[in-house]
Amino acid sequence: MPNIQAARLIGNLRRLSEFGRYKTGVHRPTYSAEDMAARYWLVERMEEAGLKATIDGIGSVIGRSQARGPRLLIGSHLETQPYAGWLDGAMGVMYGLEVARAFAEDPATAALAIDVGAWADEEGHYGMLLGSRSFCEQLTEEMIDAAKGADKTLRAALAEAGLAGRRRERLDPDSYVGYLEGHVEQADYLDSSGLRLGIVTGIVGFNLYRFTFVGQQNHAGTTRMAVRKDAGVALVRLCNEIEQRFPGVAGPRSVWTTGRILLDPGAPAVIPGKAEMLFHFRDIEQECLELLERTLDEIVADANAQGPCSVELEVLSRTPPQLMDPKFQDALELAAEQHAPGKHMRMPSAAVHDAQIIARQLPAGMLFVPSIAGISHHYAEDTKEEDIILGCRVFAGAAERILRGAA
Amino acid sequence: MPNIQAARLIGNLRRLSEFGRYKTGVHRPTYSAEDMAARYWLVERMEEAGLKATIDGIGSVIGRSQARGPRLLIGSHLETQPYAGWLDGAMGVMYGLEVARAFAEDPATAALAIDVGAWADEEGHYGMLLGSRSFCEQLTEEMIDAAKGADKTLRAALAEAGLAGRRRERLDPDSYVGYLEGHVEQADYLDSSGLRLGIVTGIVGFNLYRFTFVGQQNHAGTTRMAVRKDAGVALVRLCNEIEQRFPGVAGPRSVWTTGRILLDPGAPAVIPGKAEMLFHFRDIEQECLELLERTLDEIVADANAQGPCSVELEVLSRTPPQLMDPKFQDALELAAEQHAPGKHMRMPSAAVHDAQIIARQLPAGMLFVPSIAGISHHYAEDTKEEDIILGCRVFAGAAERILRGAA
Repeated sequence: MPNIQAARLIGNLRRLSEFGRYKTGVHRPTYSAEDMAARYWLVERMEEAGLKATIDGIGSVIGRSQARGPRLLIGSHLETQPYAGWLDGAMGVMYGLEVARAFAEDPATAALAIDVGAWADEEGHYGMLLGSRSFCEQLTEEMIDAAKGADKTLRAALAEAGLAGRRRERLDPDSYVGYLEGHVEQADYLDSSGLRLGIVTGIVGFNLYRFTFVGQQNHAGTTRMAVRKDAGVALVRLCNEIEQRFPGVAGPRSVWTTGRILLDPGAPAVIPGKAEMLFHFRDIEQECLELLERTLDEIVADANAQGPCSVELEVLSRTPPQLMDPKFQDALELAAEQHAPGKHMRMPSAAVHDAQIIARQLPAGMLFVPSIAGISHHYAEDTKEEDIILGCRVFAGAAERILRGAA
Repeated sequence: MPNIQAARLIGNLRRLSEFGRYKTGVHRPTYSAEDMAARYWLVERMEEAGLKATIDGIGSVIGRSQARGPRLLIGSHLETQPYAGWLDGAMGVMYGLEVARAFAEDPATAALAIDVGAWADEEGHYGMLLGSRSFCEQLTEEMIDAAKGADKTLRAALAEAGLAGRRRERLDPDSYVGYLEGHVEQADYLDSSGLRLGIVTGIVGFNLYRFTFVGQQNHAGTTRMAVRKDAGVALVRLCNEIEQRFPGVAGPRSVWTTGRILLDPGAPAVIPGKAEMLFHFRDIEQECLELLERTLDEIVADANAQGPCSVELEVLSRTPPQLMDPKFQDALELAAEQHAPGKHMRMPSAAVHDAQIIARQLPAGMLFVPSIAGISHHYAEDTKEEDIILGCRVFAGAAERILRGAA
């Protein structure tokens, strides 16, 4: 069995967390200077590990093994949410790097090919799962033209990052036996139940929306309450309506969040004439996602009927639930049972992952390690080192089993 | 009687509206390049009118007559709300300029002294009524140190505008018989009742607050609804509570507005750990303002008792209601009756004006002209030219009456 070097794995993770360090975590938005520096650092680490590495036109870092045997793709993402944790995404990429290197170093596995991908913008600073969608040819040039972040377009961000005009790499599904991704759980199921490993059964679907409210901008002193068309008040009413109605139609594991609100012009003494909010929900059941969307449509129709402002609901993305390959689940579970008997469980992923895109093209599997107290997308995010190392060993065991065709 | 030159008045107003022109209005935030250009342009116009002009350390433009007779101060402000109208503030300053020039040109009034002030940041990009408060010594260096706008501190804005280190001018109350300010009504009382002039009886009080909500930033997919501490949801609930409770305690003319909302970090897939909103209300009755503030305190206490997020209410400013001088109201009414018999009314001002600051030190009066459809703080703001000109003539008549001691 290939020898996973714990010190090397942890050392690389610590070094990577220095790019954009913030308190005990990392602030590394996609295509920022820190993010690009981390990508170029990864290219060097991949080359050291014997992979042929490149950064493609969407910013994904892809390292290809020179071995001729059966190929397995391993990956995750490098960028972080704002002021977020050091492991989210980064750990899965470092698992790929360490497994590729350990396989290459062991004559018994040197013929097996491990390719590693760090998919750009999984976190959605400019879109959602941009790198894995691009790699799987689910991202058109028109989509890139239309995408924008909080303060610039995706095209502008790519140009500033020096990526404009580069070729985007594409997946050849026939060349791989499958895809594996390691990740922190980001919830507290494992941590609160004293388990150390989660074998992912499937990834929840995710629908993202933009609400736009149009009223009438006016003077906030002289305009009587009765005649106002305050877009901010319309937004608050609609948010409140969601909070009232969603619990009655949501599934037991459904979640929904308003992540951003903008009032326009945003001055203290002006009635907002426009308002905008980003809203999303998630569930593992397709039927539930559809029911939640119908409920949103009803809320919007009611708000428009009630007035005085108008509301528009725009679907920014719909990502369906995606099941993981049963044989890959078995391979991960066997390896988990070998390294940590009785300390693992099968579970759905409530977070979006690149695996759900690649699983449409290749058999895919995911392994979780515990997030302490379930904290994630926050700089306090952490996992015990022994669990990080255990996860990588299990991951390597499953990868070997899959590559040898036992899965 | 001094000869108000209609073409000169309208020409100056049109020229001034070119600084920061936006559609049919103006975008000229305090200390922006366009705003500073307008201030330097005003200095030149004042000098042309025979005034000795300066821009002081807070950005106010002050022009002083060289005449030795009784002195009247006339003013308003130059900067605008974002993407707002061409008359708000600007018209009152141009009234001062035209009246000063007409008085100086007429031998019968050349001994009467008209000083003109364009008070900085009435609109509150960095504070509230900064220029008039500074002129009346109600703005300390510590307040300037603490003040900030949407994207920079007041100190930084002053430095960028080249104003750092300049002396701030101060009012000598003994040298003036009083203060007059002309302004567009910004409401639709005059326009909807077919009247052409409003004599202001008093200016409503204005309380401005910042609410800060603290929850727990976390992953918006993996964190169960039941255990979330979503600061954005807390903000929406509190806004909704204000909408529920305020109508029951507000006066008939009370108004309240949430002008800005920020969710932190503001990413679509992150539960907001912090949220902030700017909120204000206005009324002409001091008792009503106090009741509204007590209601806010109760709402905040209830929210904190309910949890799971904490809420803090911070008073950013409290500006009490301010009555206009009765003799100045009489002088304006007599001039109004002379120029437009039966076409005027006495009315409170629902908007904040520099007059309410200066009225604490000097007898003060305000004259309104109609805002078409009551639209203000929007680029569609407008007033008929004939009403602008009429207002200036009435203003000049009242100024002469006041300066000759008839008021």
